[in-house]
Amino acid sequence: MKPKIDPDAFAFRLPFEVRDYECDMEGIVNNAVYQNYLEHTRHVFMRGRGVDFAALVREGVHLVVTRIEIDYLWPLRAGESFWVGVSVERMSPVRARFHQGILREPDNRPVLKALVTGASLDARGRPARTGVLAKLFD
Amino acid sequence: MKPKIDPDAFAFRLPFEVRDYECDMEGIVNNAVYQNYLEHTRHVFMRGRGVDFAALVREGVHLVVTRIEIDYLWPLRAGESFWVGVSVERMSPVRARFHQGILREPDNRPVLKALVTGASLDARGRPARTGVLAKLFD
Amino acid sequence: MKPKIDPDAFAFRLPFEVRDYECDMEGIVNNAVYQNYLEHTRHVFMRGRGVDFAALVREGVHLVVTRIEIDYLWPLRAGESFWVGVSVERMSPVRARFHQGILREPDNRPVLKALVTGASLDARGRPARTGVLAKLFD
Amino acid sequence: MKPKIDPDAFAFRLPFEVRDYECDMEGIVNNAVYQNYLEHTRHVFMRGRGVDFAALVREGVHLVVTRIEIDYLWPLRAGESFWVGVSVERMSPVRARFHQGILREPDNRPVLKALVTGASLDARGRPARTGVLAKLFD
Repeated sequence: MKPKIDPDAFAFRLPFEVRDYECDMEGIVNNAVYQNYLEHTRHVFMRGRGVDFAALVREGVHLVVTRIEIDYLWPLRAGESFWVGVSVERMSPVRARFHQGILREPDNRPVLKALVTGASLDARGRPARTGVLAKLFD
Repeated sequence: MKPKIDPDAFAFRLPFEVRDYECDMEGIVNNAVYQNYLEHTRHVFMRGRGVDFAALVREGVHLVVTRIEIDYLWPLRAGESFWVGVSVERMSPVRARFHQGILREPDNRPVLKALVTGASLDARGRPARTGVLAKLFD
Repeated sequence: MKPKIDPDAFAFRLPFEVRDYECDMEGIVNNAVYQNYLEHTRHVFMRGRGVDFAALVREGVHLVVTRIEIDYLWPLRAGESFWVGVSVERMSPVRARFHQGILREPDNRPVLKALVTGASLDARGRPARTGVLAKLFD
Repeated sequence: MKPKIDPDAFAFRLPFEVRDYECDMEGIVNNAVYQNYLEHTRHVFMRGRGVDFAALVREGVHLVVTRIEIDYLWPLRAGESFWVGVSVERMSPVRARFHQGILREPDNRPVLKALVTGASLDARGRPARTGVLAKLFD
């Protein structure tokens, strides 16, 4: 049984179009490229809530991915359009979990389902309350 | 003297936004990534004129880049928007030259100027009239 | 508690060096790039057992990743060396599971632990016995 | 007439192997990926002369590419081995030109010829003597 995706379950969605250079020799999007789509969507989503990833880096604050689970359900092909959805769940003061899905346009065929765990770290790389996650949830 | 770019000189333009994963450790877009932007714009431009790159590949027709010249004028940074322009010039029945530029939004600051030469090849990799270039110019 | 990696648990290992263009604005390897390292190692490993990915594509046989789980344990930085390990476990006649790890050189610090599930598919995209997985286990 | 490459003309060479994820839907290495190969080789070459790119970034010194010319002579395919050569020529106290070539193994078939112009910049992005280029030539 393949995992299902509820298109209405996401707090934010971002439209994309497959670029030919993202396809591999099978004519489908390379597995690693989907992770780029997921990350870009998380960053745009967070920017909308006042968390600018590039600014964080300049300030020495780190928001890192500690774990990712991806179910690949259907491949995207050159020329296809799709959207990426994201919602975020608070796990602890220093940890959040992003629920993400990729759905093909215009039929909303499920392409990929992902669960991404992130943590805010201090300069030494240890989990720390940095106010970043608070912004995501307030 | 830096090369100049006339924003009104392009037959087609495509809007983009820098994605964080496209930036390198200097916080600016990596040099090779600009070539992805240029290629994607050429392919969307050609698709609008009936030349579908993925379909060509399936048919065994090859449209290849034989030479590229790029002047890097100003770096793009995370979060910035920009557009890529393209015009095409017929060089011979088997060869075309794409004039391309990248300009930052919203001030049209010139980011990059490129000259890309393409050729249509037969199955053996030799220049050949394949009808592809004809579509671009008719 | 972070997942542990036993350096001696892998059937095959491949040495790598971080390339500067693989690092993002934090000066560390971008999350998606690790998936490239994992895939390349799987493909070299499989080629050593007579399974050539590019040849499979030409023959219309598909060996796809259906699920990936990655624990990010420690980031790699520009200039660092590391190795990727892989072992494979038979799940069914049409499904295999790859256990992978990335360890930094020369101290074998665990960088990443991954579990990658793959399936062999027929032309219609349904799981099928294609002889590919048999090669991996015989 | 295609540009020629003298295999013995380079001061430094680095061996590579095509990784499957670097190939596009034509089964050949994507054009932009060659620029990654070229950059990685320049950086390893410079590191051997005491110029560490990542360290420069941390010190606020910028060594940027201002222009690149690439002739694509023959495509690399999945599974092929090749090497990248580089030599450097002093243009001025703030500007250097890298001559680069990519040759397929084991037959030294010319794959690509490139001319890459670099400049050392101060914090404001203007050409400046930073001692970096001096290291390359002393």
